[in-house]
Amino acid sequence: MAEQKNNGLILVNTGNGKGKTTAALGMALRAWGQGMKVLILQFIKGGWKYGELKAAEKLGPNFEIRQMGEGFIKGPGDKFLEEHRHAAVEALAAAKTEISSGKYDLIILDEILYAINYGLVALPDTLDLMAKKPGGLHLVLTGRNAPPEIIERADLVTEMREIKHHYKKGIPAQKGIEF
Amino acid sequence: MAEQKNNGLILVNTGNGKGKTTAALGMALRAWGQGMKVLILQFIKGGWKYGELKAAEKLGPNFEIRQMGEGFIKGPGDKFLEEHRHAAVEALAAAKTEISSGKYDLIILDEILYAINYGLVALPDTLDLMAKKPGGLHLVLTGRNAPPEIIERADLVTEMREIKHHYKKGIPAQKGIEF
Repeated sequence: MAEQKNNGLILVNTGNGKGKTTAALGMALRAWGQGMKVLILQFIKGGWKYGELKAAEKLGPNFEIRQMGEGFIKGPGDKFLEEHRHAAVEALAAAKTEISSGKYDLIILDEILYAINYGLVALPDTLDLMAKKPGGLHLVLTGRNAPPEIIERADLVTEMREIKHHYKKGIPAQKGIEF
Repeated sequence: MAEQKNNGLILVNTGNGKGKTTAALGMALRAWGQGMKVLILQFIKGGWKYGELKAAEKLGPNFEIRQMGEGFIKGPGDKFLEEHRHAAVEALAAAKTEISSGKYDLIILDEILYAINYGLVALPDTLDLMAKKPGGLHLVLTGRNAPPEIIERADLVTEMREIKHHYKKGIPAQKGIEF
């Protein structure tokens, strides 16, 4: 692990707008540029797209993305809810292991708040994870509807609010921008 | 230039919170991962820090950052206001040239909205720049207080709102996170 001069922050990107995952990705690149070791654990598949997966491959071993979850849930009647839950439990276990491993300087738990919203991950387990974070590690949590308990324990919380979106004008997702 | 299958979007990251520049950086990495050519023109020095400058060096010629501006303005009595203005005019000229050059797939005008807020760059010149954007190019504008005329012409506008900030708890800026 790189030397630990930092106190290590807990950061939360929440809100209904674009940029939660994208800003986490930017933070990951900045940290990587500083020679820090980065792990991105994806709780929901689909939040991270080809663009960043390809980029991660090119950036080498200090920039790791692990896709742990299933896709976004289709609705309350999603037939594969158990599979989603199972994948989220595995992602949480991986998060626990890696947070205490001392191998990383920055760990991003991408869409973990989504997993909490859907009851796939328990809030107390997440708070426990945050409480046990080693001093030098920066931890980033992303997803809509950050619970107040998480906001209370975070150092930096940003809400990404959608002001205007091109999907509403009928323009489809764009390569390099959304995937 | 890479092949132009996209229509090319105009995106705006605004608001008083963190993540405007960081999300633009994430977008740049995603586009770079897709093999696209990226240019970041910095209207105000200091928005982009060592982390991303070092990262850009490692990413090679398809990921270019140009620092054009002076630092942030100290206040209305800033003695170097003329130098700020001069630097911003040069940044705008570079933006015009590169937007019409056809060389890039994604151009980020970082903190151009800050430059507009301080009267360093004229709003009509910026609107003109947006109007002349070639079809295949994605253009990203960042900075606080996006003027309504820019929001109107943009495809995707996100407001980054500060909910909580560790500076207020007395924790200083952190390596890999803020620089």
